[in-house]
Amino acid sequence: MKLLRYGAAGAEAPGIVDTDGNIRDLSNIIADVNSAVLSDESLAKLRAVDPATLPLVPGKPRIGACVGNVGKFICVGLNYADHAAESGMDVPKEPVLFFKATSAICGAYDDVVIPRTSIKTDWEVELGVVIGKEARYLDESEALDHIAGYCVVNDLSERAFQMERGGQWVKGKSCDTFGPIGPWLVTKDEVPDPQVLGIWLEVDGHRYQNGNTRTMIFSVPFLVAYISQFMSLQPGDVISTGTPPGVGLGIKPQPVYLKAGQTMRLGIDGLGEQFQHTVSGERP
Amino acid sequence: MKLLRYGAAGAEAPGIVDTDGNIRDLSNIIADVNSAVLSDESLAKLRAVDPATLPLVPGKPRIGACVGNVGKFICVGLNYADHAAESGMDVPKEPVLFFKATSAICGAYDDVVIPRTSIKTDWEVELGVVIGKEARYLDESEALDHIAGYCVVNDLSERAFQMERGGQWVKGKSCDTFGPIGPWLVTKDEVPDPQVLGIWLEVDGHRYQNGNTRTMIFSVPFLVAYISQFMSLQPGDVISTGTPPGVGLGIKPQPVYLKAGQTMRLGIDGLGEQFQHTVSGERP
Repeated sequence: MKLLRYGAAGAEAPGIVDTDGNIRDLSNIIADVNSAVLSDESLAKLRAVDPATLPLVPGKPRIGACVGNVGKFICVGLNYADHAAESGMDVPKEPVLFFKATSAICGAYDDVVIPRTSIKTDWEVELGVVIGKEARYLDESEALDHIAGYCVVNDLSERAFQMERGGQWVKGKSCDTFGPIGPWLVTKDEVPDPQVLGIWLEVDGHRYQNGNTRTMIFSVPFLVAYISQFMSLQPGDVISTGTPPGVGLGIKPQPVYLKAGQTMRLGIDGLGEQFQHTVSGERP
Repeated sequence: MKLLRYGAAGAEAPGIVDTDGNIRDLSNIIADVNSAVLSDESLAKLRAVDPATLPLVPGKPRIGACVGNVGKFICVGLNYADHAAESGMDVPKEPVLFFKATSAICGAYDDVVIPRTSIKTDWEVELGVVIGKEARYLDESEALDHIAGYCVVNDLSERAFQMERGGQWVKGKSCDTFGPIGPWLVTKDEVPDPQVLGIWLEVDGHRYQNGNTRTMIFSVPFLVAYISQFMSLQPGDVISTGTPPGVGLGIKPQPVYLKAGQTMRLGIDGLGEQFQHTVSGERP
């Protein structure tokens, strides 16, 4: 299933993509695509509904983040060896973790706001993992049971805020609109192997990132199990699993950063595509 | 006002402390102490209610975190000059920010769980600031308008997870039960100056931390305004403003860490006291 949330920001309704690619309204079945409906059991009930019997959503509504009420937005740094190299960082011995603010989350096609005073706003296409079932101290073999599905994430990053303002990365990772998630939450049954997915990103038509999840240093099951040693995971938590090479920071001879008026397109095999226009100023 | 949440974890009801120190039930007035009731206007309506007219809560219920549905749990590192020195870190030129997982939040008297494999679990008493009104790009002079009130926070920290496992601090800051908040959200009208508060912590009766918020490097209004340059703040977000000297990590000649079977007591002038027993194993 491809689940999504459509409508005005903060008032999204749940939907599902039918076989023709149309959005069908799930409002009579569930209140939202959120922690309450992400267990294997709840998803099985949804799967038993024939989308053709659901109301067709007219027009072209805004698409929100594919998961509502995300509790934790956990990111993995430097999880592709080539990306670590382009960033001038050593390949980590164990996963590097950080958080993005959940207030940074937005829809896959929402405008990305270049923060005031920013001169180093950068892109990072990543495979997102959506937790379906509470997890603590998992073994790697148990991880899949706790995953609801996958999505595209753009882990936008202000490099000066991240690395030149003292301390931790959080300042450069948490600006409003720095976390487009979706367009869809694709349930795990449609992604038999998350480690064979092409993953790419373009800015104004130029392809900067063109990787494959097979070159991840730490696999999806390893990461879920690893994180669960340090904190419990709840349904609706999103783990963004790191970005392949080709971010603006790593471009030679000079880094390339985003400015207002540009367009990003990014996607992952089977998980759909995002696009965002960049704008100046505050979040609308 | 001293607002609180009482009852079983995950099913807390809202309450208020009356002039005799008893808990009165606010369930007929508000659904929870959360983002929906933290604006100046909402708090003024609550203030107009005479607690004596509210049902008395019988017995000694569990006290939950004083704010529900916290969206972001933002922490400031090294915000007392003496604490930076004891940690072997330079005094920061601008605030060091990091996040704790919101899943780490618990009540002021809940057991603190020493994580599996932990040998360096440490304490940090901190002044917590609860946001009452959305904030973006604030000037310092505007910050107070966006604060609902204050609370005690214990920013528990596993130092090996935090500093010896690669990358960012988040691994050592986010374990379940590593964020007791409360017992009360004390509204800002009762805290005319947050920079003159005694702040202390004891383990098994030994006073390890004994500071005052006047020695903060960056003041509460400065911090709120500063953070709002990097991310928007929403009602119910909690900012923990750093710890004074005396954490276990800094003790000479050998650091002192928590083990199961101990008791912490900690408090801040006017904001009440917490106590936690330490236990082994997983969160109950």
